[in-house]
Amino acid sequence: MREPADLLITDCSLMTPEFDILDNQYVAIRDTLIIAIGKAEEIKDKYEPKEVLEGRGKLLMPGLVDAHTHTCQQFLRGRTLGEYPMIWSRILVPFESSLSEEDTYLGAQVSCLEMLKSGTTSFAESGGVHMHKVAEATIESGLRGAITCSTMDTGPFIPESMLASSPGEAASRIEELYRAYNGAGEGRLRIWFALRQVMTSTPALITLMADKAREYNAGLHVHLAEHRDEVSYCLQNYQKRPAEVFDQFGALGPNMLAAHNVVLSDGEIALMKERGVKVVHCPRSNFGSHGFPKTPTLMQQGLSIGMGSDGAAGSSLSLFDEMRVFRSGLHAFWGLPIFDPVVIPAHELIRMATSGGAQALQIEDQIGTIEIGKKADLILIDINQPHISPTHRMIPTIVESVNGSDVRDSIINGEVVMKDRQVLTMDEEKILYESGRALPRVAVRAGI
Amino acid sequence: MREPADLLITDCSLMTPEFDILDNQYVAIRDTLIIAIGKAEEIKDKYEPKEVLEGRGKLLMPGLVDAHTHTCQQFLRGRTLGEYPMIWSRILVPFESSLSEEDTYLGAQVSCLEMLKSGTTSFAESGGVHMHKVAEATIESGLRGAITCSTMDTGPFIPESMLASSPGEAASRIEELYRAYNGAGEGRLRIWFALRQVMTSTPALITLMADKAREYNAGLHVHLAEHRDEVSYCLQNYQKRPAEVFDQFGALGPNMLAAHNVVLSDGEIALMKERGVKVVHCPRSNFGSHGFPKTPTLMQQGLSIGMGSDGAAGSSLSLFDEMRVFRSGLHAFWGLPIFDPVVIPAHELIRMATSGGAQALQIEDQIGTIEIGKKADLILIDINQPHISPTHRMIPTIVESVNGSDVRDSIINGEVVMKDRQVLTMDEEKILYESGRALPRVAVRAGI
Repeated sequence: MREPADLLITDCSLMTPEFDILDNQYVAIRDTLIIAIGKAEEIKDKYEPKEVLEGRGKLLMPGLVDAHTHTCQQFLRGRTLGEYPMIWSRILVPFESSLSEEDTYLGAQVSCLEMLKSGTTSFAESGGVHMHKVAEATIESGLRGAITCSTMDTGPFIPESMLASSPGEAASRIEELYRAYNGAGEGRLRIWFALRQVMTSTPALITLMADKAREYNAGLHVHLAEHRDEVSYCLQNYQKRPAEVFDQFGALGPNMLAAHNVVLSDGEIALMKERGVKVVHCPRSNFGSHGFPKTPTLMQQGLSIGMGSDGAAGSSLSLFDEMRVFRSGLHAFWGLPIFDPVVIPAHELIRMATSGGAQALQIEDQIGTIEIGKKADLILIDINQPHISPTHRMIPTIVESVNGSDVRDSIINGEVVMKDRQVLTMDEEKILYESGRALPRVAVRAGI
Repeated sequence: MREPADLLITDCSLMTPEFDILDNQYVAIRDTLIIAIGKAEEIKDKYEPKEVLEGRGKLLMPGLVDAHTHTCQQFLRGRTLGEYPMIWSRILVPFESSLSEEDTYLGAQVSCLEMLKSGTTSFAESGGVHMHKVAEATIESGLRGAITCSTMDTGPFIPESMLASSPGEAASRIEELYRAYNGAGEGRLRIWFALRQVMTSTPALITLMADKAREYNAGLHVHLAEHRDEVSYCLQNYQKRPAEVFDQFGALGPNMLAAHNVVLSDGEIALMKERGVKVVHCPRSNFGSHGFPKTPTLMQQGLSIGMGSDGAAGSSLSLFDEMRVFRSGLHAFWGLPIFDPVVIPAHELIRMATSGGAQALQIEDQIGTIEIGKKADLILIDINQPHISPTHRMIPTIVESVNGSDVRDSIINGEVVMKDRQVLTMDEEKILYESGRALPRVAVRAGI
């Protein structure tokens, strides 16, 4: 008698945790978990699946993890590229502070749709407004997410409506969200603590958020070492650099997800390694805001590195595009001058976008690689296309040639959420129609 | 009575030559030409079309022009990324010299398929072996192309089989191809002259090819200023830089398509501007081989700039990916240090990939923009997708978000060659199957 399974993926190519590609593989899934991987003869006659997903001509790889995004900036698409400073005070703050609950929900829905259709299965949201609406959209979409509220209690250019009246109030807002949504969506949703960045945080806020994150055994999401101005601010006010300031107030630890990490000193890199901080690069955003991060050094020092889109305002949510841009730019900047063609190997970029992100989300025991016992967060890519096949080596071809639009099917937590590019969890047509109508209204209200 | 038209594109968004986006546009095509552009009321009742292409939810833009590619390297996909030097002598030369006629034909077919499916409608091929087979595949595919033979008559590492026995023999080979194929495929195919690069050309070859190109009123396709080694060679052997060497022997002129242009001196840039040379950048290849070209200077000096993929060996044939990688890298390298967020505006990248390429192919009077009287070389992009719409500004969104896989329809010379992603001119399934079988055999024969 055959064993029951919920889902069987047939006859696909499969990316192993070591970045080898195996052909003619079958994968059985029961409930949320991968229960078997192997050739037809090992799997096909052993399991009786409720549902079958055709894998022929497709590559099965781990779902991508967008480890730093802003779902609340979805309605800024195309708005910030090429803009003169200060984008933060002139566009981002007026926009975010003017969002209604309804806009936030719709924006989060479009964001989730874009993620699903680009191969992303998990994300970390660094915190905006009306986050309960983002939570609702995430639960509905089927995505896995780590969500938090925007937390700022000081800083110029920030309207009263976005500032917490006290550190305690900021923490209370997150605790309320935690009680309502942590573990929701069959465990897909987790609520985190956050600090927007060092310049918009008082020492009291930093200390309290670090304490609360530890108390709740949750992650702490921050922006770190993104801008030269941020370093300048810390040197002037604390005579320390940004990572050192966070450390002074007890925030730098293994539960910290630090986004950007461009303007890091070697001392900060060593400190972050020692504290076990999870680094997340946002390639296009980093190239746009401060240049080429010291990624080869971070890799050589053994820090955990994830990858994030930083939201749709300046680029897109496709991590395939992020990998591609990152590889070429880092190679030209760091590799060529020292004559090193493998300063940033293709498989390391895929690692950042999958298991590196899983580490940043602190669920690397659950997702990020295709292994028996892990959660089934998987995507199937149509590789039977002339821009992908035939190829001598699939791994560099994924980085250089595959697009978000080539992802055909997506499985999260064992559920098929996209099949043959049809999102099964959300009404794509309706959401696109409504968001097309909403965008001008949102722009007018924000005065941008 | 309504006027006859061959094709009517209905109710699309349309990119103007000034990079504005107009909505609800209709475009009428007769024979190979655009004959009318306008709103429904101006077009719909005026023309009686034989065929209608649905444009709703799509953006009509000029087809992309890949102004420097190597169709003969299609079977090297995934093979050269991250490889140690010398890629040229260790991989490219053994590979190209071992290609059979059949392999060349099949490789060119896959290359044409990839171009069509990525939005490319015209290309300039810099010359490989068995070019009559490339000509045949191009005619069959419906693409527009400027094709030439590989021409080398000196240089280390190059096997006898790839070297012309004399400049005259190299010219004769191209003249033969010219007589057989120039103007073929309803005028889509043109045969050009070529010099592979300065290090593999004797002065006699440079002089003769320049003369022949002028005699035939054809283009001259060269690799220029790609590598530091090339500059070093020229300084040692001629006490001049590469562009100056070409000029010394009469090759530098308005009919020259110069690919790469990374290691140019300011003097060479001025000389190339004076001679009217058409510059073609290959962003990913350039970032891979020598770094960040002085594109802002080239733009400021007013040189004509096109964009090329440099073939599939190291990356892919998608010019959307080339634009995206180029923008981020150039911005980070040239824009950030001088605090200039628009050092490389999005519309300039689209210009390079369309009308800039048309100038490089010396057919800017015929293609590259959507205008009445121009050839209908057009693509339709499905913009009704959550990674593209809604957007505040479509032009940066095209550069940052659109993929080759988002191109739904393609029209070349007035013919619909791809409809709803089905290529109508070629048997995609058969070509992919046969090329999958061919690739290992080609690799074994080349010993790579």
